[in-house]
Parts: sequence; structure tokens; C-alpha cells
Amino acid sequence: MNDKFCQGFKACGIKAGIKKNGGHDLGLIYAAVPSTVAGVFTKNRVAAAPVKLDIARVKKGLAQAIIVNAGNANCCTGDDGLKKAEKMAQLAAEALGIEPESVLVASTGVIGQPFPIEKIEKHTEKLVAALSDDGITDFSKAILTTDLVMKLVTKTGNMDGKPFTITGVAKGSGMIRPDMATMLCFVMTDIDITPAILKETLLFATDRSFNRITVDGDTSTNDTVLVMANALSGARVDTIGKAAPFQALLTDVLTELAKMIVRDGEGATKLVEIKVVRAESSDAALKVAETIANSNLVKTAIFGEDANWGRIIAAAGRAGVPIDPDRIQIYFNDIMMVENGMGCGQAVEDKVSQILKQKEYEIVVDLNMGNSEASVFTCDFSFDYVKINADYRS
Amino acid sequence: MNDKFCQGFKACGIKAGIKKNGGHDLGLIYAAVPSTVAGVFTKNRVAAAPVKLDIARVKKGLAQAIIVNAGNANCCTGDDGLKKAEKMAQLAAEALGIEPESVLVASTGVIGQPFPIEKIEKHTEKLVAALSDDGITDFSKAILTTDLVMKLVTKTGNMDGKPFTITGVAKGSGMIRPDMATMLCFVMTDIDITPAILKETLLFATDRSFNRITVDGDTSTNDTVLVMANALSGARVDTIGKAAPFQALLTDVLTELAKMIVRDGEGATKLVEIKVVRAESSDAALKVAETIANSNLVKTAIFGEDANWGRIIAAAGRAGVPIDPDRIQIYFNDIMMVENGMGCGQAVEDKVSQILKQKEYEIVVDLNMGNSEASVFTCDFSFDYVKINADYRS
Repeated sequence: MNDKFCQGFKACGIKAGIKKNGGHDLGLIYAAVPSTVAGVFTKNRVAAAPVKLDIARVKKGLAQAIIVNAGNANCCTGDDGLKKAEKMAQLAAEALGIEPESVLVASTGVIGQPFPIEKIEKHTEKLVAALSDDGITDFSKAILTTDLVMKLVTKTGNMDGKPFTITGVAKGSGMIRPDMATMLCFVMTDIDITPAILKETLLFATDRSFNRITVDGDTSTNDTVLVMANALSGARVDTIGKAAPFQALLTDVLTELAKMIVRDGEGATKLVEIKVVRAESSDAALKVAETIANSNLVKTAIFGEDANWGRIIAAAGRAGVPIDPDRIQIYFNDIMMVENGMGCGQAVEDKVSQILKQKEYEIVVDLNMGNSEASVFTCDFSFDYVKINADYRS
Repeated sequence: MNDKFCQGFKACGIKAGIKKNGGHDLGLIYAAVPSTVAGVFTKNRVAAAPVKLDIARVKKGLAQAIIVNAGNANCCTGDDGLKKAEKMAQLAAEALGIEPESVLVASTGVIGQPFPIEKIEKHTEKLVAALSDDGITDFSKAILTTDLVMKLVTKTGNMDGKPFTITGVAKGSGMIRPDMATMLCFVMTDIDITPAILKETLLFATDRSFNRITVDGDTSTNDTVLVMANALSGARVDTIGKAAPFQALLTDVLTELAKMIVRDGEGATKLVEIKVVRAESSDAALKVAETIANSNLVKTAIFGEDANWGRIIAAAGRAGVPIDPDRIQIYFNDIMMVENGMGCGQAVEDKVSQILKQKEYEIVVDLNMGNSEASVFTCDFSFDYVKINADYRS
């Protein structure tokens, strides 16, 4: 066993010539034994072919492998795309000697280009041969697109004296917003759990992690989070009542990955938590936090290190929930900059300017309307975001 | 009478030292006779002091002057701000020799800074002395912030053989999105009309013009459209049944101003009409058009002159209305690039690339779900947008 990777799984990543830059672009995760599986997927009505395939396949609750490519999203590719997603699973299954239905598929990259299945076919034997106990690092490279860094987290927990492990690997880093950030995430754990409870804990954890981040307010067609549980730890969750330690650790792993995605957001130089407190309801708190987190004017001000709180309060005002501007306080970390809807003056602004130079900080918006709160993680909006996205396909 | 300005109105714009760059920043419009007035205002729950004042004052349906400053929004300025907005109206009223309640006020600029009423007080006499029949050009300069060009339109119509004129003047150019673009607009007309019908025609016209544009998806705290009608043409609208010629011309004037705002959007290099056709309902058409028009990924692709239709269809898919991606066609001007949800190939893409180099074009999204349509005008998202907004206050 490897301290970076849950026991009972192998992984790998290789170069199959799909990405234009010639980097790692084809990855495989393999469970030595058939594993319990659950997934959550994009809510975008334009769903990519692999998403459609996986939604059908996770229903039976068992899987043994996930094959993933970067460089082409296999989206808006019609029946041909769906057949090629099936073929991709079948190729992996044949090389692994397992059932095609136990293989899941994910793709990320450009939308609407014919899917290069022939490149995958040509490399499947090599891919399977590359599987290893510590291949998760190569795998984590193979799923990247505009990401700059790998996103890989392993944590261990304890249940009734039995240790268990969760490894998560993810990619961003554009088309990221709540309701499933645009991303792929694969989680491997050695917990012993039923498919229904695995699904429920996954929904809980994604709602508090990937659904609380934003880079650019766009939702992708390919968002996928898959969890495989191989039961090898012997730590058993057979009722939802026993799920708490696992659910908490899964939430921790996904939250850490979610923050890594925002920190590595396209062009991002800052990671900022927008925390709305004392809202009338959780829903109101989340709407205000999301509206601020997605405001281009707020995000460019964060990039410019400008304490332009007027844009924050203006974004709060258009969130579509009742607020009273005269009751609002705004804090940067622990420094109050706005009290009862008005600025606290130049001396405070000077202090806040120092906070704005930091790589990570929080903006707290106190609505003074109730007792609910919500947080969304966002990044700044830089020249590089525009550069990356103006040039993406060329 | 001036061919750029409706009869019976005078205007001016001067430098009062409010803007940091020392440009024109204080303007006045004056009607020789008390005029019928109507207004529409921001839906942002954080409304600036002058907006609150005007909402109360337009209710009585009569006004005679509008005083406007740029450089400070008088927003999040509390009771002090409201008193200063009233004071600003009072100063103009005293210098003009009219009732304070017949003066309306508008402000634009930074939010949350103390409002410099003393600079306005110091310059009121000079302002009133500067009023002239052709002062609308200086006025149109005095309301600009990050705008690069003046936005001034005069059109004439005819009703029962009587000619009438509408002059509109507006400013953008950030915090612009449907539900009132962030902007100020002042309209002067010599039609003879009741306050109720003026309000109704104004709502009709703004809904089809300013509410159909977006620059950056943010809604301002200061959005204001005011119309004054002085009845001097003798063309009379005393029932809504007679309003059609006036309503149509008003819509034309506001649409032209709205497009000028988008064309001059912060950092904008393109004006693109997003036209959604064959939707299930008007509401669905508008939601899809707005989601595409506000997508940062679509807007950066427009800037990059990249025919990345995958981002368009992905934005349509997250608009929150039922669509079937396999039925979608996408056209750039009259060239079909996507048919039944799939790309039409490289030869078509090459043709579309030529269209993308143009300054203005339309993207038509055919949902093939019904008979409704809607258009939204948007601009591209450029390096300069980020530059302008990262540096705005410094």
C-alpha cells in the first residue's frame, strides 16, 4: 500500500496523442475486486456521451474500472459519440479481462469535435500494462486540461477501531461554478458500504464542496464525480446512522480538492472565501454568496487588489433575495470595512489593502437578517483568464 | 431648434472637479415649461440616494429639470447621501428659480464614497449660466464614466400630420446587464402625453432595449431612465390606443442607445446579437439568450474570434429551461455551423471564421421546440475589461 493511494486500486496515465501539446491524456483506474460505485453528474441539459453512459451504468451499483481521456470532451458528438464512449469502455474491459458494463468512462476537453477513438484503441494494451500501485500520479496528469497542478488528496479515518482510506483525484479548471463545478473527480476508498448509502454520502459531500466553488460561472457538459468502494478495510457502513465518520472524511477530501480547483482556476491568483452570515435562510445566504462569488466586477477588483466594497454590496443587492443595505457589515478577514451599509473610512481601507495582497483571505458579508449562513469559494478574474479562453482551441 | 435636440429643452455640462481626470462631470437638463415625466429605475435592492429621491418625485408626473453628476454614485452613503441628493436638487432649483420638487437627480461613479456636495454647490451658478439650446453635447460628456464615446440620438416621427421629436442621451458602460443595464438615460420629447401613458410606453421601450443588453452581468445601484415630455409639438397622445407611433419611435431611440452602450462596453471590441428562435416560450427564449450573452466563456471566445460553438450550446444547456441538444441549430449570420446538435465541419468553420473577424454579427440559436424568440445584445470580454475593472478606483 502507498500512502498516496487507497489499497486495492491501481492506476496509470499515458500519452495517447489526443492532447495537442503531446502530454499525458489517457488514464485508467482499476479495482482488483468489483467495487460499490456511486456518481453525481452535470445538471447541464447538454450532457456529454460518457456522462450518459455512466448515469446508466452506475445504477447497478458495481464497477471495476474507469477509463478517462483529456483533449476531447466527446460532447455534441451524437450517436457516434455514444458508440465511441461504449467502445472506449469495451476496449478497457477486453484488455483487463472484465465485463464491459463494469467499466465507466469520462472525457474532458473541447466540445463538438469528432472523438478520436482510434487513438485510444491503439493505446489500450499499453495503458493496461502501465497500471501500478503508485500510478495515480500519472493518472492525475492525464486528466488535466488547462490545469496547472495535479489535484490529489489521500486521507485516513477510523471506524470502530478499523482504519479506512479515501483517495480523491480531480481536475478543473474552467467552466467551474456551483451545481457541479466543471470538473472530473474520481474517489477510491476501502470502506465497506452499500450503493445507496455511498450515493447519499456522496451527494452530501459534493453539495458542501464542489457545489460551493466558482471560477467563471459556466457549468460544463462533462462534470462527473465517481466513487468506488472496495470494502478491503473491513470498516463497514451498513446503515446511514453509521455513515458519519465516512461522510465527514469524504467531505474533507472533496472540499480540499474543490479548493485546489479554485486555487488553480484559469488565470487565478487568489483564493477567496465569500461567507454570508446572519441571512434569513440558508437558501438566501447561498444566493447572495454565489452572486458575489460570480460577479465579474468583484472578481476583477480582487485581481486588482482593490477594496471596492461597493461592488460587493451591489452584487448582494441583485441576488434576488430580500436584503436591507443599511444593516449590512462587510469584513475582510476580521477587519470590518462596512458598517450599516457605509464605509468605515480610509484608515480601515489601508489595513484592508494589506489583506488584499494576500493569496488567500475571506470576505464576510453580515446581512443582519437572521441566523443562516453559506460559503462559496471563488478566485480572481485576471488577464490570463481572458488569454486562456480567447485562445483555448487554437 | 437644433436637429440634435428636441425643442423646448436646454442642457449643459461643465467641469466641477468631481471626476479624478478633471473632465466634464456635472450636467443639467432644463425644460422651459413644466413637463410630464416618467422613470424606470434599478431593481437592485441597494439603490443609490438619487434613485430613491427620483422614485418619490416622478410619482407626481411633472418635472422641469434634471441635474446629474459623474465621478461619485452617491450610493451606500446613508441619510447623509439622501440629504445631499435633495440638496443637489435644491441648489439647481434655486439657481433656476423653480420648485425643488420639480428637479430630479442622477449620479454615477464609485459607490460608497462621501458625496462631494460642496463641489456641486460651488458650481451651480456656473452650471445654470451654461444652459443652451445646443448644450446637450456637453451634457452627454458630463455623464460619462468609463465610456469612450458620447451616446446621443435624436429621431423625429409624425402623428396625425404633426411632427414630434425624441432626443435620448445615455451612458454605460460597466455593470451592464438585463433588468436595467447599468446606465443613465435621459429622454426629452415634445409629445403631448399623460404621465400614465408615458410610463407605460417607457416600460414597453426599456423592456425591448436596455433590458436586452449585457456587458458584464452586473446590475448597478444607480440605473435610471427618465423621460420628460413638454407637449410643444402639439402631437397629442391622450389614450393608449393612440400611443403606437410614439411608442415605436421611443423604442427605436432607446434601442439605438442600448446598442451604443454595448458597442462601447468596457473593453468591448465586438457587438453581437444573440438571437434565440423557435423556443417553447418567450421566457425560455430570453433565458437561453441571456445565459449565452452573459457566459464569460462565450464572451472570451468572441474576443478570440474562435468559433467555439460548444461553449454556446453548453451555456444554452444550463439556462434552466428544457432544451433538446439534438434538435439545436446554430448560425453565425446566415451560415449554419451546428445542425441537430453537431458541428457542420471544417469547411463551414473556415467560413464562420471570416464572420468572427467582423465588428458586428449575430449568433442565431434555433432550439426547434416552438415558435417564440428573443434577442440579447452582448459584447466580447477582453483584456481591457479586466484592466479597466482591476484599476477602476485607483
